[in-house]
Amino acid sequence: MSEMNPQPAVCLLSGGMDSAVCLAQARADGFAVHALSFSYGQRHQVELEAARRVAQAGGAADHRTVELNLRTLGGSALTDDLEVPKARDEAQIGAGVPVTYVPARNTVFLSVALGWAEVLGARDIYIGVNAVDYSGYPDCRPEFLRAFEALASLATAAGAEQGAQFRVRAPLLDLTKGGIVQRAFDLGVDLGLTHTCYDPWVHPSGEVRSCGTCDACILRLKGFAEVGAIDPISYCDPQER
Amino acid sequence: MSEMNPQPAVCLLSGGMDSAVCLAQARADGFAVHALSFSYGQRHQVELEAARRVAQAGGAADHRTVELNLRTLGGSALTDDLEVPKARDEAQIGAGVPVTYVPARNTVFLSVALGWAEVLGARDIYIGVNAVDYSGYPDCRPEFLRAFEALASLATAAGAEQGAQFRVRAPLLDLTKGGIVQRAFDLGVDLGLTHTCYDPWVHPSGEVRSCGTCDACILRLKGFAEVGAIDPISYCDPQER
Repeated sequence: MSEMNPQPAVCLLSGGMDSAVCLAQARADGFAVHALSFSYGQRHQVELEAARRVAQAGGAADHRTVELNLRTLGGSALTDDLEVPKARDEAQIGAGVPVTYVPARNTVFLSVALGWAEVLGARDIYIGVNAVDYSGYPDCRPEFLRAFEALASLATAAGAEQGAQFRVRAPLLDLTKGGIVQRAFDLGVDLGLTHTCYDPWVHPSGEVRSCGTCDACILRLKGFAEVGAIDPISYCDPQER
Repeated sequence: MSEMNPQPAVCLLSGGMDSAVCLAQARADGFAVHALSFSYGQRHQVELEAARRVAQAGGAADHRTVELNLRTLGGSALTDDLEVPKARDEAQIGAGVPVTYVPARNTVFLSVALGWAEVLGARDIYIGVNAVDYSGYPDCRPEFLRAFEALASLATAAGAEQGAQFRVRAPLLDLTKGGIVQRAFDLGVDLGLTHTCYDPWVHPSGEVRSCGTCDACILRLKGFAEVGAIDPISYCDPQER
C-alpha cells in the first residue's frame, strides 16, 4: 500500500481501550483511518470525549459521531435505568449474555460503518471485539463477523455493481485483555486517554473516576495485572463517592 | 395465532405507500405491529408526520421513531444537498443505483429493527421493499434479505442462546406499483395519509404538495394509473411553485 496515498478504512471507536488499540492497528496496517463513534443514548458522554481524544492522539484522518438514539427501544443497562452489575468474578462475567448487552448493537454499528465505507470507497472496517467479549456477547463471535461480510457485498452498490468484497477486521479477536494491554504498549497507544467504566463518577474537581467494580473495569484491571502494569486512569475511592 | 394474544412483529414504516401497505399486511397476518420509523437527516419532516398518521390509522400497537443522523456521513440526494433527478422515464429510473440511494440504509434499518425485535421477543420483521425498488437499490434484493436473516440469528442473544430464527417478511417484493395500490385497496389502507415525494412543496396554506416529477412520484402515479385509480394526495402546479 502506498504511504503517500493510503487506502481509507473505517474504524469503530468507542473511546475504550480495545477500540483505541484497534485504531492504532489500522494505522500500523497502513490505512487512512476514518473513526466512527455513536452517541446512542449512553448514560455518560464521558465515552464520547474519550473517543475524541483517542482519535486525535491516534492520528485518525477523520472522526465522526453519528447520533443514534437506541434508548427509544430500551433493553440494556447501558441505555436504560437497569442496574449495572458490580464486583462479579470472571466466571460470572463470562456466563451468558450480560444485562449491559445492547440488542443488535454491533450489527447496527457495522451497518452504519458499511454505509460510510461505501461513501468513502473503503473496503475495510475495523472493530475492536475480542476473545473476552465474545464469551458473553453474541455479536462479537467470529461467525457473526463472517456473516456480516457476506451481507455487506449484497447490501451495497459497490458490491452489486463492482463485485466489491468488504472485510471486517477484528485484530483483537484472539487476544486476552492482557494481550490487548501489551499490544497497546507495542503500538504506542496512550491508555490514559481511554475510558472503559460503565458507571463512572465525576469528582467535584471535574476529574472522571472509574468505579473499578463493574464488569468492564474488572476486565480492564485484569488486563493490566496480567502484564504487570499500572492503569494510568483514575479510580474511585468508594468511601469518597 | 391467537387473536387474543397476537405475536409481536416489527414493521419498518417510512410513511410512504409501500410501508403503509406492509403494515396493513402485518396486521392482516395477525401480528401486533410495532412500527419503527427513522429520523435520519431527511430534508423533510413531512415523511415522519405521514408515518405517525399511517401508524395510527393502521392500528399499530406501538410506533417509535429512532433518531439516526446519517447526514453526518453524506452520500445521498435524500440526506445531502445533491439535486433530486426529475422527469425521468421508467427505463432511466430502473437503470443503475439512483443518487437517492442512502448507503446501506436498509441494512441499518433492519439492524435497528432486529434490536427492537429482540427486546420485544419478536421474530418477524416486515419491510416494504418491492420489485420496482430492487431494480436499482441493492439492499432491496431477495438475496440481501436472506443474508440478513442468516446474520440475525448469529447477531442476537435469542439466536445464540435459544436458536431463534428471525424472518424478514417482504410481502410487496413481487408486486408492481399497480399491484401495491390494488393491495392497499384490498386491505383498506387510506393512501391519502401517505407521503412519497422526494421534493415536496408546502403551499402557503400549509398543505403539502408532491412534485409529481421525481422518481418516487413517477412510480407512485404509474401505480395508480395501472389500476385506473386517482391518487388522493395533492400535487404541485409547477407554475404556482
